[in-house]
Amino acid sequence: MNNNRPLVVKVGGSAGINYDLVCDDVAALVKAGRRMVLVHGGSHETNLLSKRLGKPPRFLTSPQGYTSRYTDAETLDIFAMVYAGKMNTRIVERLQKRGVNAVGLSGLDGRLLEGPRKASVRAIIDGRQVLVHDDYTGKVTRVNAALLNLLLDHGYTPVISPPACSNEGEAINVDGDRAAAMIAAALGAAQLIILSNVPGLLRNFPDERTLIPHIRYAELEQALSFAEGRMKKKVLGAAEAIAGGVDQVIFGDARIAQPIQRAMNGAGTVIAP
Amino acid sequence: MNNNRPLVVKVGGSAGINYDLVCDDVAALVKAGRRMVLVHGGSHETNLLSKRLGKPPRFLTSPQGYTSRYTDAETLDIFAMVYAGKMNTRIVERLQKRGVNAVGLSGLDGRLLEGPRKASVRAIIDGRQVLVHDDYTGKVTRVNAALLNLLLDHGYTPVISPPACSNEGEAINVDGDRAAAMIAAALGAAQLIILSNVPGLLRNFPDERTLIPHIRYAELEQALSFAEGRMKKKVLGAAEAIAGGVDQVIFGDARIAQPIQRAMNGAGTVIAP
Repeated sequence: MNNNRPLVVKVGGSAGINYDLVCDDVAALVKAGRRMVLVHGGSHETNLLSKRLGKPPRFLTSPQGYTSRYTDAETLDIFAMVYAGKMNTRIVERLQKRGVNAVGLSGLDGRLLEGPRKASVRAIIDGRQVLVHDDYTGKVTRVNAALLNLLLDHGYTPVISPPACSNEGEAINVDGDRAAAMIAAALGAAQLIILSNVPGLLRNFPDERTLIPHIRYAELEQALSFAEGRMKKKVLGAAEAIAGGVDQVIFGDARIAQPIQRAMNGAGTVIAP
Repeated sequence: MNNNRPLVVKVGGSAGINYDLVCDDVAALVKAGRRMVLVHGGSHETNLLSKRLGKPPRFLTSPQGYTSRYTDAETLDIFAMVYAGKMNTRIVERLQKRGVNAVGLSGLDGRLLEGPRKASVRAIIDGRQVLVHDDYTGKVTRVNAALLNLLLDHGYTPVISPPACSNEGEAINVDGDRAAAMIAAALGAAQLIILSNVPGLLRNFPDERTLIPHIRYAELEQALSFAEGRMKKKVLGAAEAIAGGVDQVIFGDARIAQPIQRAMNGAGTVIAP
């Protein structure tokens, strides 16, 4: 593998993820000269803080079965506090303690992750289809790869999280897995590693013995049918990354030692053309 | 004034500050070609969130009469959520909406603001002097000016907030005004503008008719005697900035239109050698 093509790692935000082990592995790879970018989530902590603040999380389900966080202005504040505040700061801190000169960025910084805000979101609530208008969500369609390369060229390791930046400059909630896919494609990454609190794509979630070791790109549509909740967007992200020129997407386990290097070596679910 | 010497603006975090007006003025200056850095606070919002989370803010008073937030690990999470999360994200959003390509950074990012964590903090509690050991606070002694210049050279406007990075890589609470002074000195800024919710240094706080229009550097020690609470650190910051080579420090009013340009033109308290 060409060592100069960057590596993009996405680590999820679900309960059970071991960020210390992930950061140990980032440090080992960066010290070995690897050019890499870390993207992270924060969904579990966002749910916890939302409840503590008396604003329990709500989720919208699209007619196609995809769920997303209902993100009004107050929820976006909570989202930014957790993702760009607590999670990003503490991950950058872990990396600085390990000698990695990390730089934390949200998608608003330098319009790093940019795209249209949805004018309205179609969702199923109590069996009826409704249109939600005060939702700050959207989709990343453009990545400021120049900013990432500028930082990488000067020895910094970018640590990225949503929110993203709408075309009008608003903070918007976007899916982190699909954002990571766009970043991997924009940087010409060889591999995109997507780590979560399961060992990979499971045929019968949550039975970990049903791990699927390999999926070809052409089979991804079919994989969507048995991917549960949050895994659906990872499968979509994988398809988008490979369509964007990434060689391999690997779903790996963020609860174990050397989670990134193990996934790079094929542990988990390997998706390739 | 040499337009190429950067301008550093610190906007406080107290109640009553109008961030829309501050960002309007940043946008006007950046569009006019001004090379500038914005540093911000978040104390009022941190107090509010601390209370909502059942962790009311506590403040330590040093034997010299300086107050600082008691910052244990949980408080630092809250601090990071407000400063690096909500406040920084929303200020960067305001600037992006106004066409300024802002990049938000905490002091951990690229070790932008680095210095020693205090091993212990001496404080007066109930009239007795005690040593506090679990406090994550410190002082900025080194600024990564190369990172700021890299971003400025590529058309980005840095938006900076605490926490800073201890020498060991830990997140630490540092005073924002003194951090801004260190940034201004490190960048060779011509002016440091410190905006808050008062018109400048008042001889009899809070009587705004007692504004002091000019203070010479040699008089700053004396000014410390009548500077109230939060203003004490601004006076210290002013002294440090001028000792570091900044031509002028101006305390201005962040509640009015064109707060930066007015201060640049001398409205408020002008401090010079």
